[in-house]
Amino acid sequence: MDLPQELLPFTLGEGSTPLIRSKTIGPDQGQGHLYFKLETANPSGSYKDRFAAFAVADMLRTKSERCLATSSGNTGAALAAYAAAAGLPCHIVLVEGAPEGKLAQMQAHGARLVTVKGFGINKEISESIFGKLAMLASDYQTQIQVSAYTYSPVGMQGVQTIGFELAEDLPEADHVFVPAGGGGLALAICRGYQLWKHRQPEFKLPKIHCVQPEGNNTIAGNLRAGLEHAQAVENAFTRVSGLQVASVIDGNETLQACRLSGGNGYLVSDEDVFDAQRILAQCEGVFAEPAGAVALAGWRKSLKLGEMSADEKSVCIITGNGFKDPPSVAAMTAANPLHFLDNVGELENYFKSNESNQ
Amino acid sequence: MDLPQELLPFTLGEGSTPLIRSKTIGPDQGQGHLYFKLETANPSGSYKDRFAAFAVADMLRTKSERCLATSSGNTGAALAAYAAAAGLPCHIVLVEGAPEGKLAQMQAHGARLVTVKGFGINKEISESIFGKLAMLASDYQTQIQVSAYTYSPVGMQGVQTIGFELAEDLPEADHVFVPAGGGGLALAICRGYQLWKHRQPEFKLPKIHCVQPEGNNTIAGNLRAGLEHAQAVENAFTRVSGLQVASVIDGNETLQACRLSGGNGYLVSDEDVFDAQRILAQCEGVFAEPAGAVALAGWRKSLKLGEMSADEKSVCIITGNGFKDPPSVAAMTAANPLHFLDNVGELENYFKSNESNQ
Repeated sequence: MDLPQELLPFTLGEGSTPLIRSKTIGPDQGQGHLYFKLETANPSGSYKDRFAAFAVADMLRTKSERCLATSSGNTGAALAAYAAAAGLPCHIVLVEGAPEGKLAQMQAHGARLVTVKGFGINKEISESIFGKLAMLASDYQTQIQVSAYTYSPVGMQGVQTIGFELAEDLPEADHVFVPAGGGGLALAICRGYQLWKHRQPEFKLPKIHCVQPEGNNTIAGNLRAGLEHAQAVENAFTRVSGLQVASVIDGNETLQACRLSGGNGYLVSDEDVFDAQRILAQCEGVFAEPAGAVALAGWRKSLKLGEMSADEKSVCIITGNGFKDPPSVAAMTAANPLHFLDNVGELENYFKSNESNQ
Repeated sequence: MDLPQELLPFTLGEGSTPLIRSKTIGPDQGQGHLYFKLETANPSGSYKDRFAAFAVADMLRTKSERCLATSSGNTGAALAAYAAAAGLPCHIVLVEGAPEGKLAQMQAHGARLVTVKGFGINKEISESIFGKLAMLASDYQTQIQVSAYTYSPVGMQGVQTIGFELAEDLPEADHVFVPAGGGGLALAICRGYQLWKHRQPEFKLPKIHCVQPEGNNTIAGNLRAGLEHAQAVENAFTRVSGLQVASVIDGNETLQACRLSGGNGYLVSDEDVFDAQRILAQCEGVFAEPAGAVALAGWRKSLKLGEMSADEKSVCIITGNGFKDPPSVAAMTAANPLHFLDNVGELENYFKSNESNQ
């Protein structure tokens, strides 16, 4: 990696996340080689810890006096944790509607939090905020942290380690399905793999696929259609928290890097995503937030379109933990209430009636 | 380990959790060698995944048709996930007052949940429930899963891997601080270390300390007082979820194993625990549930009592993630609200006034 020699990550134990083999969803579809990369197992519960470890290391190297960031939630939760550990005051400008789990993390780590109506949802408002923050960052003698190469290339180098780990843990992978908001994650994984191949020229790169909710079609549709560029959308209307990124940001580079790998674009409905979240929990024991289930929704779409063969090996990146977004879990929990009994005597009857309902 | 040869864990990526060095709390006290073992980074967010991986592997080996368990939350969340992945129906009898984060996990993974008034709080009610469940388990041709050697020695062998990892990652550790409800975790770590020493007789064991909230003093007080046995308490009154275990369970063996290692008992107040939870989040970037901060409260008590020297190396086991118990985080979040702005123009003023308040 072309990092400054002295830049070691400021670590809280991120990375080296588990890669586990699907026990049900793959085999049920005749696909024996489906894998999940559990970024949920990072210290703050999402892959953004890899970003924060490098971003905060760089802030310490450059003697920044504070961390100034925008986030839909996970970047903020990660930066809040890492900045707290580094003793850096942390200010986070949140997109509208960041879910409560991520908010609670940022609050607990002591970050200062502010949100502006329309931020992240509306393209114009978002761009105006980025402009304003760039000026503020310059006043603060720091640079704004956003998990995108356009803004924070050093932090994104931390995310590239996902590519290294996959190349090492499953060198024979054929497909990697990656969820995209602005596209930075998919681009980082492409670049990680490319760096790996640079060192090991005989290494065979997998196809890296970009999966987006229909309500934030900035990259995936154009990638599939053979176009050269990503597109901004006026309003991101997906309900999948974290993937509402109306602007292009890293979209062009992402589209080109995925295409170079032989990857395709997949658009999935919000219902596909919530369904993928449900089967991850109920059939695989994997507790993911909706954005963390988007890759699996893309894998299922690819299978439906006949774009994968049964002997090929696929990885879905499970980006964030279910606890990040409690309301998204509510549909699953409401269907399965907790029963209260007043005394021990009722226990036997409960099990008997439960038995007959099974 | 004396496991059946064929028993490999049924894995969802548990274990090999990070061991990170304190960046602030230790150094601020002149203690340069304080470490945190982040069991929060297990797939379901607590060390109980190690238990579930072995317990479910054993259920599959013995062809159990269902999983029947009691839990204060984390064992249930882990078993619900692993049983879902294994395709085993899962029934969990919860102690009264299990926190909502753990509940949501169990519900999402599709476990059947029931709770009985007084369970886990009152010794008599608890013992009567265990009796009833033992009979039900026999009807179901399974055995009841409780994260304690008394009930589930095979599952507890999974927990022993914490000892192996610590022995490997920090062989020169002097002290390991472990939170205790029934004591199983501390006992498992002692046994893991003992097995390690059995293979490497020259290995120097650390002192393994048992830390309990004052409101559940079953082991720690008697360990410190030099007594031979643990004691039941009539009602566990600590507010630290997961550590309300009124009965002795593994307490006698735990007390003896800790003493054999040279370890001591530490009793901490609930306020000590909530304070340790807060400084973990705000000074170390570690998001723990209250039970996950108990070990640090014990470490601070040891320091206060002058029972540690500055050059000694200590590890605190951070057992569970902050998201497990949202109300416990509420005090931290309430002090740090999110600010809503209506438009971009207000952003500059917000930062200016924030600046002057800093």
